Amino acid sequence: MNDGTPRPEHGPRRIVIVGGVAGGMSAAARARRLDERAEIVVLEQSDYVSFANCGLPYHLSGEIERRDDLLLHTPASLGAALALDVRTGHRVTAIDRAARTVSVTAGADRYDLAYDALLLSPGAVAVRPPIDGLDHPAVHALRTIPDLDGVDEHVRRLVDERAERPRAVVIGAGFIGLEAVEALVARGLEVDVVELADHVLPPLDAELAPLLADELTARVVGLYLGVSAQALNTGSGSALSVVLSDGTQLSADLVLVNVGVRPASELARDAGLELGRHGAIRVDEDQRTSDPHIWAVGDAVEVVHAVTGAVGPVPLAGPANRQGRRAADSMLGRRTTPQAAVLGTAIIRMFGLTAAVTGASQLTLARAGIAHEVVRIHPGHHARYFPGAEQIHLVASFAPDGRLLGAQAVGRDGVDKRIDVLATALRAGMTADDLAELELAYAPPYGSAKDPVNMLGFVAQNVLDGTTPQWHPSDLDDVLADTLVLDVRSQSEFDRGHLKGALHIPHTELRGRLDEVHTAADGRPVSVHCASGVRSHIATRVLLAAGVDARNLSGGWLTLTAVRPDLIA
Amino acid sequence: MNDGTPRPEHGPRRIVIVGGVAGGMSAAARARRLDERAEIVVLEQSDYVSFANCGLPYHLSGEIERRDDLLLHTPASLGAALALDVRTGHRVTAIDRAARTVSVTAGADRYDLAYDALLLSPGAVAVRPPIDGLDHPAVHALRTIPDLDGVDEHVRRLVDERAERPRAVVIGAGFIGLEAVEALVARGLEVDVVELADHVLPPLDAELAPLLADELTARVVGLYLGVSAQALNTGSGSALSVVLSDGTQLSADLVLVNVGVRPASELARDAGLELGRHGAIRVDEDQRTSDPHIWAVGDAVEVVHAVTGAVGPVPLAGPANRQGRRAADSMLGRRTTPQAAVLGTAIIRMFGLTAAVTGASQLTLARAGIAHEVVRIHPGHHARYFPGAEQIHLVASFAPDGRLLGAQAVGRDGVDKRIDVLATALRAGMTADDLAELELAYAPPYGSAKDPVNMLGFVAQNVLDGTTPQWHPSDLDDVLADTLVLDVRSQSEFDRGHLKGALHIPHTELRGRLDEVHTAADGRPVSVHCASGVRSHIATRVLLAAGVDARNLSGGWLTLTAVRPDLIA
Repeated sequence: MNDGTPRPEHGPRRIVIVGGVAGGMSAAARARRLDERAEIVVLEQSDYVSFANCGLPYHLSGEIERRDDLLLHTPASLGAALALDVRTGHRVTAIDRAARTVSVTAGADRYDLAYDALLLSPGAVAVRPPIDGLDHPAVHALRTIPDLDGVDEHVRRLVDERAERPRAVVIGAGFIGLEAVEALVARGLEVDVVELADHVLPPLDAELAPLLADELTARVVGLYLGVSAQALNTGSGSALSVVLSDGTQLSADLVLVNVGVRPASELARDAGLELGRHGAIRVDEDQRTSDPHIWAVGDAVEVVHAVTGAVGPVPLAGPANRQGRRAADSMLGRRTTPQAAVLGTAIIRMFGLTAAVTGASQLTLARAGIAHEVVRIHPGHHARYFPGAEQIHLVASFAPDGRLLGAQAVGRDGVDKRIDVLATALRAGMTADDLAELELAYAPPYGSAKDPVNMLGFVAQNVLDGTTPQWHPSDLDDVLADTLVLDVRSQSEFDRGHLKGALHIPHTELRGRLDEVHTAADGRPVSVHCASGVRSHIATRVLLAAGVDARNLSGGWLTLTAVRPDLIA
Repeated sequence: MNDGTPRPEHGPRRIVIVGGVAGGMSAAARARRLDERAEIVVLEQSDYVSFANCGLPYHLSGEIERRDDLLLHTPASLGAALALDVRTGHRVTAIDRAARTVSVTAGADRYDLAYDALLLSPGAVAVRPPIDGLDHPAVHALRTIPDLDGVDEHVRRLVDERAERPRAVVIGAGFIGLEAVEALVARGLEVDVVELADHVLPPLDAELAPLLADELTARVVGLYLGVSAQALNTGSGSALSVVLSDGTQLSADLVLVNVGVRPASELARDAGLELGRHGAIRVDEDQRTSDPHIWAVGDAVEVVHAVTGAVGPVPLAGPANRQGRRAADSMLGRRTTPQAAVLGTAIIRMFGLTAAVTGASQLTLARAGIAHEVVRIHPGHHARYFPGAEQIHLVASFAPDGRLLGAQAVGRDGVDKRIDVLATALRAGMTADDLAELELAYAPPYGSAKDPVNMLGFVAQNVLDGTTPQWHPSDLDDVLADTLVLDVRSQSEFDRGHLKGALHIPHTELRGRLDEVHTAADGRPVSVHCASGVRSHIATRVLLAAGVDARNLSGGWLTLTAVRPDLIA
């Protein structure tokens, strides 16, 4: 491939990098590996570089025992391995683009530093919600090492001092919020969660969120959904009272606020760099800003969403790291990999559950006006006959031409694998036909001969080519009003709960009892369902062949009752 | 998508399916779902349909406790749910293509059955190796339910009767052979394995097989590699003596033979259907044979290998099931998904280890004369700072233009996920650049911000564009003869074992000690290595920048010593 001869490097003399975590540090390391001669200075305003910010909740919980394990590198280790000049506690206050210098403050010192290439990796800052009393010392965030130290110390004090179990209120049930809930429960606190959206983990579709909510409730976590925190009042003793928009008051010895982040783009804005929507720094495919000597990466920059084409910041570690690598290649005049649009792939472990998403959610598609068909399955994570098969609740959206648009899953095992396969399929522009033909590794402990991902493809094929029309949980009111509901589950399943007015015929008896369906339907369409959609798929096909206008409930009783728990209440 | 109106079905009047497992039963079920009117007859020569053949070793081990769990369906359950006419114990002895009938034997009865469409799913039969004494009652296979019953009963008797631990010899260390080894160990037997190839699990590259061999040795399994069994002699008592080609004699109370399978294509051959290489039935993209009224699926048919283009049978459950579905679509005049070429994705759990492969192995590529570059990494299966990170040994081959050609992995956790992602990438024709840009689900319990699959892409990019030239374990003799070996590991790693004549400079000291390298190299190229290839990548880049002709050991000391254990002996 190469004759081994070193190529001359003609990179910039001094590369200055603002921000020493994730994207910034990836860029610094890659730049050094590509150019041994450049001076590379990393300016980090905090006292820590290259720390594991995704690991903070797991040290709070105690699962990562040693705090030092979160500090992946130090200025000294980076100097030794990569000859980087890493300066912590050095804050960049301004960029002089004409002079190509940055102004730096370090404690009482101030200095200007010239650059040939400048990389901005300022990250994001926590959004400060409009809540009275947020400055109380019992209120914390969980984004930095000092944040973590603050919460940890506070929790330690509460647990040591209180006779009763201390109480925490977590405001915001996103990824970090829910990880924090688990950590605080692990530390022995009673926890309430407040979320403005009507379900936990807002990026997750509403139909999957109840699985997480049930798990939280089982751990005695209080859920306050569709409400906001309005004020924190100092109550009796040292406890706070969190006042919600519906008037509820929650007592709290500790409040953790995680309601999202916004790009830390003030420095770029003040320097006159072009910003996009939501204040994110605009960059080209090489991560270059509107100034040809300045690059930007990470939570502060604009990206394009692969499915919707929407433009905005996406605060994810994976894209940030890859952007850093690409920016270094670009700064050093290397061939760059074109920046891939962002899928928004994300995952959370919450107690025993895993929830993961990739591509566009149903809500995102609906809001963007993108036509799509949703399929839902509930397969085992491996062969059903092999011990320990755990159910995966898997939902995917497809364009009318079959192209995959997004997928989401919740379960206990095998969720991360399926979402990673689907994220890869999304990146490749695969269709339902392609998913049907994927050849995934099968042995009974790992999957099924027809993997859940294949099954998604099969079901989508049947839906998209009209073999088996679907109805959806959101159609329930119309279905009850205008159609005959046919429940093809077993007698015992039916007896445990069913739709009002449903005709019950187990799927194995349907062929012999078609007359009953004709009579009961009396010309109306028939809305079939079983528990998950498998048996009712067969039944729907039997009915269609008999001339009945039939359709199958997508996701079955499992999805229906997740969305409408009142049906089994 | 569809107005719900049933479409008229114009399928064949009677579909006859020969073989009621995997592909055959998938076809039967799909055909019924597509056509309620067709008569569908499944003729299965054994007493069992739709049994979990991949589950047999796990019932032998006791992990799947109930034998009934292996019997996924019965003729009665298939009749009730799908109105299939399933006849077990009915063997098809001949096809009259002109008359469109099959001759069937059922016990003492014989009858002819007319078909409009015929599907052959005869599967494969075990290869009978040329070993004297194979008819001894202590000799078993493990492909069918009766096989399983025979081994299980034999093991039970041995364990009950013997004071000493009974001894088993497993001939053939392929997937089923190794699963059987684990099962027999679990049942308390002492086990020896005999394999003609020079390493266990021949589809796995030689450099990964030692990881499995070490695990077997740790479980006190005897390994006899590169030898064949020649004869089974009845020795003293009821034990057999297995005589190997090198003269070794192994005592055995039970012998399990699994040396591969061949297509059960006699019926097709006798009917004059076109066969391909290795005796497999030739089919088109719709699974249709050379007779337009006959389709064939499963282990007995020819497939095209996606990477090499080689044509032959591939006995895997996943492709068989998908072929059955496709054949049903074709028989019923439906749009079919074009048959995807086969990747050969396969996986095994062996004791605590997982080994998996997809695409072409290094050996396959070399034999096919396909140019490729091999990259090897040893990342943690999730973030290193999160407890329980297990090392994955991951190898992938890329074409000079960057296209992925194959991947293999061995480890304890996360192996199945990475191989499934890579199988999806292979199917999509992805390149190293594409792997670098995959956006996989990251949280510390599941992966890393730069997932192992991204890392494969990064390393391959560096190798393919000449950034970091590699040397390989197979180059060792030349490297020792003609180059300076530079070991950049720590002092303690170096002290635990190193290459003879190696210059040792820890990577963090290299920049200050370049003179030593120049002096020691004395004009020769420098062959750098560390433990896994990460630190030596940096070191190689430092040397290249200093004008040294340097290259990095692919996979580092970990891969080198797996291939050459004598180096640390």
